[in-house]
Amino acid sequence: MNGLTAKLASTSKVETTQLLIPPDANGQGIAFGGRVLEWMDRAGAIAAMRHARTQVVTAAIDQLSFVAPIRVGEIVVIRAQVNATFGSSMEVEVTVMAEPPERGETRPCCEAFLTFVSIGPDGRPSKAPILLTETEDEERRSREATIRRAERLARRRKG
Amino acid sequence: MNGLTAKLASTSKVETTQLLIPPDANGQGIAFGGRVLEWMDRAGAIAAMRHARTQVVTAAIDQLSFVAPIRVGEIVVIRAQVNATFGSSMEVEVTVMAEPPERGETRPCCEAFLTFVSIGPDGRPSKAPILLTETEDEERRSREATIRRAERLARRRKG
Amino acid sequence: MNGLTAKLASTSKVETTQLLIPPDANGQGIAFGGRVLEWMDRAGAIAAMRHARTQVVTAAIDQLSFVAPIRVGEIVVIRAQVNATFGSSMEVEVTVMAEPPERGETRPCCEAFLTFVSIGPDGRPSKAPILLTETEDEERRSREATIRRAERLARRRKG
Amino acid sequence: MNGLTAKLASTSKVETTQLLIPPDANGQGIAFGGRVLEWMDRAGAIAAMRHARTQVVTAAIDQLSFVAPIRVGEIVVIRAQVNATFGSSMEVEVTVMAEPPERGETRPCCEAFLTFVSIGPDGRPSKAPILLTETEDEERRSREATIRRAERLARRRKG
Amino acid sequence: MNGLTAKLASTSKVETTQLLIPPDANGQGIAFGGRVLEWMDRAGAIAAMRHARTQVVTAAIDQLSFVAPIRVGEIVVIRAQVNATFGSSMEVEVTVMAEPPERGETRPCCEAFLTFVSIGPDGRPSKAPILLTETEDEERRSREATIRRAERLARRRKG
Amino acid sequence: MNGLTAKLASTSKVETTQLLIPPDANGQGIAFGGRVLEWMDRAGAIAAMRHARTQVVTAAIDQLSFVAPIRVGEIVVIRAQVNATFGSSMEVEVTVMAEPPERGETRPCCEAFLTFVSIGPDGRPSKAPILLTETEDEERRSREATIRRAERLARRRKG
Repeated sequence: MNGLTAKLASTSKVETTQLLIPPDANGQGIAFGGRVLEWMDRAGAIAAMRHARTQVVTAAIDQLSFVAPIRVGEIVVIRAQVNATFGSSMEVEVTVMAEPPERGETRPCCEAFLTFVSIGPDGRPSKAPILLTETEDEERRSREATIRRAERLARRRKG
Repeated sequence: MNGLTAKLASTSKVETTQLLIPPDANGQGIAFGGRVLEWMDRAGAIAAMRHARTQVVTAAIDQLSFVAPIRVGEIVVIRAQVNATFGSSMEVEVTVMAEPPERGETRPCCEAFLTFVSIGPDGRPSKAPILLTETEDEERRSREATIRRAERLARRRKG
Repeated sequence: MNGLTAKLASTSKVETTQLLIPPDANGQGIAFGGRVLEWMDRAGAIAAMRHARTQVVTAAIDQLSFVAPIRVGEIVVIRAQVNATFGSSMEVEVTVMAEPPERGETRPCCEAFLTFVSIGPDGRPSKAPILLTETEDEERRSREATIRRAERLARRRKG
Repeated sequence: MNGLTAKLASTSKVETTQLLIPPDANGQGIAFGGRVLEWMDRAGAIAAMRHARTQVVTAAIDQLSFVAPIRVGEIVVIRAQVNATFGSSMEVEVTVMAEPPERGETRPCCEAFLTFVSIGPDGRPSKAPILLTETEDEERRSREATIRRAERLARRRKG
Repeated sequence: MNGLTAKLASTSKVETTQLLIPPDANGQGIAFGGRVLEWMDRAGAIAAMRHARTQVVTAAIDQLSFVAPIRVGEIVVIRAQVNATFGSSMEVEVTVMAEPPERGETRPCCEAFLTFVSIGPDGRPSKAPILLTETEDEERRSREATIRRAERLARRRKG
Repeated sequence: MNGLTAKLASTSKVETTQLLIPPDANGQGIAFGGRVLEWMDRAGAIAAMRHARTQVVTAAIDQLSFVAPIRVGEIVVIRAQVNATFGSSMEVEVTVMAEPPERGETRPCCEAFLTFVSIGPDGRPSKAPILLTETEDEERRSREATIRRAERLARRRKG
C-alpha cells in the first residue's frame, strides 16, 4: 500500500491554532492540563499520519512539562513534527505556545515527545517511511530522538 | 489601548488542523455542516483578533458553500485571513481543505466570507487597524471585499 | 422510495429551544457565533429532513447576520422552515430569538438562509418533494428564495 | 422582583427538537439514557424558568420510564409543561417522542415528572406564581400532580 | 453465553470520581441536574453490566432527589450497586456525594433507584444472574427493591 | 490555611470508572490517546487535591506508555495515588485498566507518572503536606519517585 521508503521531515509538519475557551479551563481561568494534552496528542497524531500515511496509535509520552499556564481567551498554537522513525514507531515533538490576544508576543507553555505507531490496514504495526533530514536542526532532533529511545528501552528492561 | 493605525495583511493569517472524528459526523461518516461552521468561525475569529488585538464578535456570513463532503478520519485544514477592514468591522476569508490520511493530495471543501466586529474593553465596537496589502493577491482580496460590503449594505437597505 | 411529489410547507417547521450555558460563550458571557451556527445548521437540517424524508447535507449559507448578542443564562429559540425547493436542493430559513429568563419578551438575534441537498439511499442527490404554499407569507418566502437562488447561481458563474 | 401571583399554564410550554447523533448513542446506535435525561432536564428547566421567571434547580424526578429506544439518525422531540406549583416548587411533565427521518409518524419514548425549585436573586427558594389552568387536560394534570406530591412527601416521612 | 445463575452483590459495585468543571454548571456555579443525571446513568449502567455481563439499557428512574447542590471545583463521587434482579431487569441504587477540595468531609447530594434491562447479543432482553446477598445491608436493599417494584407495577396498571 | 504537615498516602487514592463510548474512539473503535490522557490528568489532579487540599496544576508527565488499546464498549478503570511530595510538587502515579463488559478480567492499558503543583489561594505554589507511607509498597513508590525526580532535574540542567 505504501511504496515510499523515505520521506522529508518537512512534509509532515502540523500547525493548529485554538482559542482557549471557558470549558477548557478551571474556575481560575487556567487551562486544564488534560485538555492541552488532548490537543497535543491530536496534533502529534496528524504529523505521524502525514509521515506514514496510515492510521496511528499513541504509544508513549516522554518528558512532557508545562512551563507556563494558559489562560482563557488566549490563542494557543500547537506545532508537531516527526523527529525520527524506528521501524513502525515515530517520535513526534509537540510544542505549545500561548499568545495573549491583545499583544502579539507568544510564550512557550508546554513541550513533549510523543511516540506513535503506524498501523496498517490489517490492524497491525506497519513500517513507517525512513525520515530524511535536510537541515542541521532536523539532524539534531533525529540524533536526540535516538538517544531518548535508547533510554526508554533501557528503562523498560529494568522496570 | 491600541495605537496602531495600519497593519500588514500577512501578520494575521491563521492555520488550524483538525482530525475529523466520529462525533463530528453523521451515521454515514460525513462531517456535520454545523461542526465545520464552528471551526470556521473559530479560525476566522482568531485571524480578526490577531489583526485588531481586541475581542471580536461574529457579525455576518456571506456566500458560504460546501463544495465537497469531509469524511471521518480525514485531516481538515482551515485557513483564515483578513481581506479588508471597514471601521470596526473586518472581512475574513476562511477556506477548508480535506486531506485523506492515506494520500497526500488535498481538496477544497468549503469557503466563506465572515465579518467580525472588533470590541473594545468597554464592550462597544472599536476601530480596527487599517489593512496594508503587499501582494497582488492581497490587493485583489481587498477590492472584492469592498464590493461584497457594498452589496451587503444595499441588500440591508432593501430588506 | 418516496412517492410524494408535493408537500405542505407547514408540515416541516421545526422549533428548538436551548439554554445558553457557559461552555457556549466567551469569557464575557456572549455566545460564540460558531455555537449558534451549529444550532442553526441542526435545526435547518431537521426541517429539510422532515420535508424530504431523506438524509440531507448542508450546501450553502447566505446572508447570515447576527443582529444582537445572546448572553449566558438566556433561553434561545431557533425556528426553521423550508422556503422553496429546487430539484434536490431546499432553501431553509432559520431564525434565532433570545429570551432573558427573568422577562418574557424575546428579541431577534440571527437570521440566515441555508441550502440543504436531499441525499438518497445510494448516497447521491435525490429529488425533494415540491413545496405547496398555503399562506401569503409562505408564497412570499418562496418567491424571494427563487430570487436569492438566481443571484447565487449568477455569482457562481462569475466567480 | 416578581409581582405576578398567577400565570396561565399554556404560557410556559417548551418544545425542543434534537437529532440523535453518534456521540449520543452506544455502539449499537441506541441513545444513552443519560443523554436523553440531560435533554429532559434542560427542557423541564426552561419550562420552569418561563413560569417562575427566575433561575431554577432540579429537585426530584419521579416515575421516569423509557418505553422505547431512540436510534441514531432519528429526530427527537422533547416537550415540557408545568403541571402544578407548590410554593417555590413546580412539577414539570416532560415527554420525549422519536421520529424516524424517513417516515413522518412519531412514537413515545420516555415520560417523567420533574420537580424544579425557583431560586431568587439571593440564591434562596422563592415563591413561584400560582398556575392557572384553562383546559380540562390542564386541570387533570394539576390534580394528579397534587396526588404525586402527597405520595412523595409520605415516602420521605417514612424513608 | 452466560452460564452463571447467581452472583454476589459485592462484585458489581462501581465507584467513579469526577471534578465539577465550569461547563457542567450554570452561571452561578451550581451543577446542572442533567449533567449529574448523565453521570448517575453511566455509573448505574456499568454496575448493571458488571452484574449481567451484557449490554444494558436504562428502563426507569424512581425517587430521584437532589438534596444539596454541587459547586464548581468540588470533587464528585458517584457510587452504584445492584440492589435486586427481576428476570432481565436490575434495580441499581446510585448515590452522589460532593467533597469540597479544601476540606475532606463529604456531603450526600443525590440518590436514586435506576432500573436497567440486560440485552442479549440478539438485541432482546436476556435474563440477568440472580443476586446473592451476603450482608444484612444487601438483604435489606433487596427487600426494599422488591417493594418498589411492586409499587411501580401497580402504578403502571392504574396509569 | 493548611496546618497539616503530614498525611497518609492511603487517604488520597482515587478510583474512577468510565465507559468508552464512540466519541472517545477513532473509526476503528480504538480509544484516542488524548481522551485517555484527559481522564488520567483529571484523576491525578483529584488525588493531588485530596492530598494537598488546594487547587493544583499539572506540571509534568513522565514515562507514559500505552501497552494495550482500549475498545468502544469497554469499562475503563483509572486509579491514581500520590507517590511522593517535594515541596509544593507531588508525583502521582496513574494506571488505566480496561474491562471488557462480557467478561470480568481486566488488563493493564496505560501507566504514567504525573507531577502536580499545589497552588495556594494567592495563585502561587504552596507547600504540600509530607506523605506518610505505611506499607512496603508505598515506601517503594516513594523511593522510586525520588529517583525519577533526580533524573528529571538532571535532564533539565542539561537540556
